[in-house]
Amino acid sequence: MTTFTATALAHPNIAFIKYWGNRDDNLRLPQNGSVSMNLAGLHTHTRVSFDPAFTSDSFTLNHLVQTGASLARVSAFLNLVREKAAKPWYAQVESANNFPTGAGIASSAAAFAALALAASSALGLELSEAQLSALARKGSGSACRSIPSGYVEWLPGSSDEDSYAVTLAPPSHWDLVDCIAVMKDTHKVTGSSEGHQIANTSPLQAARVSGAPDRLQRCRQALLARDFDALAAVVELDSNLMHAVMMTSNPALFYWEPASVEIMKAVPGWRREGLAACYTLDAGPNVHVLCAVTDAPMVKSRLEQIPSVIQVLTATAGGGAHLTFED
Amino acid sequence: MTTFTATALAHPNIAFIKYWGNRDDNLRLPQNGSVSMNLAGLHTHTRVSFDPAFTSDSFTLNHLVQTGASLARVSAFLNLVREKAAKPWYAQVESANNFPTGAGIASSAAAFAALALAASSALGLELSEAQLSALARKGSGSACRSIPSGYVEWLPGSSDEDSYAVTLAPPSHWDLVDCIAVMKDTHKVTGSSEGHQIANTSPLQAARVSGAPDRLQRCRQALLARDFDALAAVVELDSNLMHAVMMTSNPALFYWEPASVEIMKAVPGWRREGLAACYTLDAGPNVHVLCAVTDAPMVKSRLEQIPSVIQVLTATAGGGAHLTFED
Repeated sequence: MTTFTATALAHPNIAFIKYWGNRDDNLRLPQNGSVSMNLAGLHTHTRVSFDPAFTSDSFTLNHLVQTGASLARVSAFLNLVREKAAKPWYAQVESANNFPTGAGIASSAAAFAALALAASSALGLELSEAQLSALARKGSGSACRSIPSGYVEWLPGSSDEDSYAVTLAPPSHWDLVDCIAVMKDTHKVTGSSEGHQIANTSPLQAARVSGAPDRLQRCRQALLARDFDALAAVVELDSNLMHAVMMTSNPALFYWEPASVEIMKAVPGWRREGLAACYTLDAGPNVHVLCAVTDAPMVKSRLEQIPSVIQVLTATAGGGAHLTFED
Repeated sequence: MTTFTATALAHPNIAFIKYWGNRDDNLRLPQNGSVSMNLAGLHTHTRVSFDPAFTSDSFTLNHLVQTGASLARVSAFLNLVREKAAKPWYAQVESANNFPTGAGIASSAAAFAALALAASSALGLELSEAQLSALARKGSGSACRSIPSGYVEWLPGSSDEDSYAVTLAPPSHWDLVDCIAVMKDTHKVTGSSEGHQIANTSPLQAARVSGAPDRLQRCRQALLARDFDALAAVVELDSNLMHAVMMTSNPALFYWEPASVEIMKAVPGWRREGLAACYTLDAGPNVHVLCAVTDAPMVKSRLEQIPSVIQVLTATAGGGAHLTFED
């Protein structure tokens, strides 16, 4: 039995200001900074064991053996950790999500945040939060935001070393709730990694990127001042900007389902009625409705009444990635 | 009985390359050129009578007396004609559409094209097609494209005089069919005139406009070569670009309904199956599916199977505005 084992847990995150398009696809250096909230209650739990006796890497997700591209991506990431630690051993990776697979909840952020922490700890690397975040970034860009706690900003940086995420405010700063309307018939479309690579084929990407510093500033200020209306305005605009780029890229990427549009059209009306609620969508059809904790029951109930919504998950602001002890 | 009477007919048009945003809101000088097809079978029929004895303008639309903003817009347009003709007389305007009111078919293009021709003829003005097109433009920008016949380009120009539309190809050039999926629950949202005025509040409008000359060239070439795939690519991109600007303007304008998105997501798949079909949407939820005449029955049948589509209208390429004789 090896002692080169560690287990870590990380949450997915929802972006308030979006990441779409890289300056460097290999290092996943983004074209613009982004801001997100970790999602408490949803998590990936990952155990990594390195062993000099192993003859290859293995990877199970929710107890299912993974092969092909999925295993290759994990192995490529483990190579980065092995190189840092100067230990060439193969590893066994066991990962499980507590949220339904195929529900369209982006899992790569939580997955690579947990894997970065577990793998680097198993090999005895002592990385700072910033170093860990930069490492996770190379597995999946948005994974860097699942390392720090609470409300998080990914500083785009100028190189591998200085492109990482930091906490803007702890979870306790603001009791926002993310009500996630999970759509039925979530077909797999283009994954994020390929999507980032074609972002620049949209004639709108340069304008989206050049306005990002201003939107980041508006988002930071709204967050720190707990100004919901200001947050809603910039969050909805930024989501629409990213999807505008997606649907005008070549090939055009349409992540929205009809019910996504139904909700996007309804939410500003709810706000005019007095509910503190705004929408945002990542690279998928699920609509994340951010709301004040007092309005969450009403928002959840309204979302559940929409026929194409099969489930509404709720999450408050979550902590950062951390090591856990196994049962 | 006065002899200062004329009757004219004009078709609505569907834009292949869109008009959205003005350099001059009053003169309706557009920020970019546009291309469209007149829609045969759909039309507005307008009779104008000027009479020195009238004490005010009057306007009926589909036999209903119009007042308020609707009458004011017609009167303001008649003022331009009265000024050109140096005749101060008020007029009676009777207008009727042969397509269902409230079906979300933009009627202002056909309306102001027919009104420009009828009113200028009634007062004895002898305008060239270009002058007539420039006049119609001041009633509703896209009305200038309903003056010439067939496939039409609006040259943005640099002034009132040289901003008008010309025929790119006659209706017989290409037997395209526009299958218009009319949506139920078409709520009145922001009208085009107000929409044009906020186009520049979108961070994406400048990029849309700066790429327009290239898209216009691609559209012209595809039209003249009857290259459906090339047309489809630029028409869908241009529609998505305009709606990207709309949904990122302040306030955000969402013209799409859930079923609009359902159709937009389906049509590229139909094309991969071998149907010559592509989608485009003006400032409303109806989806115009342009297709080869041989594929029109199949396209119409598929659109009719979509629950939120209440009706599918079809139109081939139509002629220009022309004077008619009354029954």
